[in-house]
Amino acid sequence: MAEIQNKEIIKRDDNFADWYTSIVKKADLVDYTSTKGSMIIRPLGYAIWENIVNVLDSEFKKLGHENVQMPMFIPESLLNIEKEHVEGFAPEVAWVTHGGKEKLPERLCVRPTSETLFCEHYKKIIKSYRDLPILYNQWCTIVRWEKTTRPFLRSREILWQEGHTMHATSKEAMDETLRMLKVYEDFQKNYLALPVIVGEKTEKEKFAGADKTYTIEAMMYDGYALQNGTSHYFGDHFAKAFGIEFLDKDNKLKTPYQTSWGCTTRMIGAIIMTHGDDQGLVLPPKIAPTKVIIIPIGKISEENKAYLKAKELKEELLNAGITVKIDETDKTPGYKFAEAEVKGFPIRLEIGNRDLENNVVTLVRRDTREKITCKIDDITKEIPKLLDTIQDDMYNRALERRNSMLYEANSYEELSELSKKPGFVKINWCGNSECEDKIREEFGLKSRCIIEDEKADGKCPICNKDGKHKIYFGRQY
Amino acid sequence: MAEIQNKEIIKRDDNFADWYTSIVKKADLVDYTSTKGSMIIRPLGYAIWENIVNVLDSEFKKLGHENVQMPMFIPESLLNIEKEHVEGFAPEVAWVTHGGKEKLPERLCVRPTSETLFCEHYKKIIKSYRDLPILYNQWCTIVRWEKTTRPFLRSREILWQEGHTMHATSKEAMDETLRMLKVYEDFQKNYLALPVIVGEKTEKEKFAGADKTYTIEAMMYDGYALQNGTSHYFGDHFAKAFGIEFLDKDNKLKTPYQTSWGCTTRMIGAIIMTHGDDQGLVLPPKIAPTKVIIIPIGKISEENKAYLKAKELKEELLNAGITVKIDETDKTPGYKFAEAEVKGFPIRLEIGNRDLENNVVTLVRRDTREKITCKIDDITKEIPKLLDTIQDDMYNRALERRNSMLYEANSYEELSELSKKPGFVKINWCGNSECEDKIREEFGLKSRCIIEDEKADGKCPICNKDGKHKIYFGRQY
Repeated sequence: MAEIQNKEIIKRDDNFADWYTSIVKKADLVDYTSTKGSMIIRPLGYAIWENIVNVLDSEFKKLGHENVQMPMFIPESLLNIEKEHVEGFAPEVAWVTHGGKEKLPERLCVRPTSETLFCEHYKKIIKSYRDLPILYNQWCTIVRWEKTTRPFLRSREILWQEGHTMHATSKEAMDETLRMLKVYEDFQKNYLALPVIVGEKTEKEKFAGADKTYTIEAMMYDGYALQNGTSHYFGDHFAKAFGIEFLDKDNKLKTPYQTSWGCTTRMIGAIIMTHGDDQGLVLPPKIAPTKVIIIPIGKISEENKAYLKAKELKEELLNAGITVKIDETDKTPGYKFAEAEVKGFPIRLEIGNRDLENNVVTLVRRDTREKITCKIDDITKEIPKLLDTIQDDMYNRALERRNSMLYEANSYEELSELSKKPGFVKINWCGNSECEDKIREEFGLKSRCIIEDEKADGKCPICNKDGKHKIYFGRQY
Repeated sequence: MAEIQNKEIIKRDDNFADWYTSIVKKADLVDYTSTKGSMIIRPLGYAIWENIVNVLDSEFKKLGHENVQMPMFIPESLLNIEKEHVEGFAPEVAWVTHGGKEKLPERLCVRPTSETLFCEHYKKIIKSYRDLPILYNQWCTIVRWEKTTRPFLRSREILWQEGHTMHATSKEAMDETLRMLKVYEDFQKNYLALPVIVGEKTEKEKFAGADKTYTIEAMMYDGYALQNGTSHYFGDHFAKAFGIEFLDKDNKLKTPYQTSWGCTTRMIGAIIMTHGDDQGLVLPPKIAPTKVIIIPIGKISEENKAYLKAKELKEELLNAGITVKIDETDKTPGYKFAEAEVKGFPIRLEIGNRDLENNVVTLVRRDTREKITCKIDDITKEIPKLLDTIQDDMYNRALERRNSMLYEANSYEELSELSKKPGFVKINWCGNSECEDKIREEFGLKSRCIIEDEKADGKCPICNKDGKHKIYFGRQY
């Protein structure tokens, strides 16, 4: 990862890529180290991740999932068991070859994903229909040896969760695949304020070893796609390769059906690239570690009434369940305001001695930068309402922008024209991967996902055969 | 790790080591994989760890610590910066030499601990006294290439937390070292019901690169010691090696002082080896993921009144904030009772149709296996009280047993005699590491810790010189 030396924020519309890198650095989300391709997730970045983990983990548990922890290393022979899987992952794993001073008899890869480990375990613990379904999840770090990396978006080390479930029937496994896709979709809409498109990946784009891959596709401010979570239906591929069988109620030995689903710290990248602006990070209130930053005007001293009041208000807000901090540094108010904006606190509460006389404070919305005068007595009533409004407005603005960059192409010419614009283009697709390849080669667009609830109603713009699916194409991170 | 094929529980007094291994396997805490030296932490084991993490993490945060995430790889040149540190760790790290198909220009070790990464970061972010103290913590997996491994006690992969803090003065850093030691001590006493001895490690036993290492020493049922958490005062060793400096209030450039402190999944091993018995695991109520297991007598069917009542009681207990499960399998009651004991649920609630007529249930304490008849109407009042009693009794029994295995040797002969008994032996120690070595060579005992609040009052039993410290010796895991 190239280090941004200059911590100034680049203008978002001037150079979106540099703007992004300047935000992650200036908001103190990440730092670089001499471990190339990896990053330090700093306190603010990690606190956002902790909030994501807490919400998702509790959703998973409500649905009956249990957490486990697998080894981080996979022996090469174990990785090799499922053919498509190893072909997909072996080129991008890190290999451990030595332990201490000794060369290992077999090299170990650092897990790029853990299907093989889960399957080895499942073979041991699944005997009967009584053992099914098994609904396991793991929070951990995985490694994929990427050539070019960008903080949160593409990194050699990734924090994520991987769910792995086993079911007695194909239908149950497919239901689970779609159920978890829905959990991701709801979470990203309701907490991260991301309007997302969900659907099935094409044969070409699916996970190595999966029968079907479903994806959550978010569109960034610049019109690029970010794949923001996937849910896979494996059928019985892996189970057969690993020899997993169970005795069913009818006393017959059967092969179980499997799913896996995962999402990563990449979601933090999506928050930044969807909501951020020229002043810095804008955090959706529901995922912001600190909802309110209080900035007392004047000196931080026990003689400053504004500071004393700030401390009172902080306690009041904490008691009302609202996370809050006071900026108690000796910087100037102007500097503090700018820093509060860079770090994306949803609400800035300013309080000066003149405000105190009038029994009011100023609330500044981070998303719109609008200033609102609020009676001091009303803050625990008004702030939760304002946080909800900010959350809704952020989603709606993102939705509006996203919708303004969704196009439909009904011919080769239209596709050619629309492919120059930022955003996603919907087409009727014949289902043939040669046409998919051509669209990538000619226009630089990759398939995003097949749209589930829309039927094809025209010709494929490439081969002119009847469309089988409606599908989105777009550029991607 | 050798796999225990026979899942039967060995008698604790027959063979403590085999008993331990049978418990971790039979209680479904861990499983083995083809990744040698690593383990799978299964749902019950991981849920215990999650409870440990939740309590400790909230204690750390109350004291102002923030979580971060460092890379899992450390370039060899970075590990090499602090001399004592690299000498201590290099022989036991795993080395990544290849990324995909390419040989790396510099090999990377999988972090055995992260002082070097934190220092590299601190050098960048510490400029002024205003930046201090920095109180960071990280939850992650580390790797140490152990030759012989045992689940939770000594494993190649270890889940842990590592706190790393930087301070303007030596005194502040020492205060922090002792403050965090106290957090560990209180946690282990109050939550894990472990009577622990705290004190300073000898020069020989301290952490590679530390000025002083403080330790939490627990004594297992068999009298062996388990080092169950350490807190290190680094002085300015690392800071100097990494060139970390800050501009102090007096406008002078100074070197900051550093601490680190960590504890691991090993604590789960300590719970098992302190409280477990011939029937299986015994979990202290405060850390048990599920406090009460309800076993309805008779068929699991909507026609069985005992089962219907069990479901009602479950809701009642959940509403009272008590975690609870019903065993809804079709196994026999006898099998269910035994399984509930193996898995260590603090209270088993049995309910049959005859109980229903009398409006009572039977509560069975896991720790004493005592049966208590309880009025159905009283369960949300009686169960929390009983859980507190169990917690206290478990601590007191462990304390009594531990104290019965603490000895004091005032001469070579006494030391020789007492070293044959299980437990710790206290001696007056001259402070010389040659005497420490001799005690290990002749009696197989290693120093545990220097006792802080007790003055030496006699001669060293080895060299007969004046004692400098009172110190414990013992065998260790």
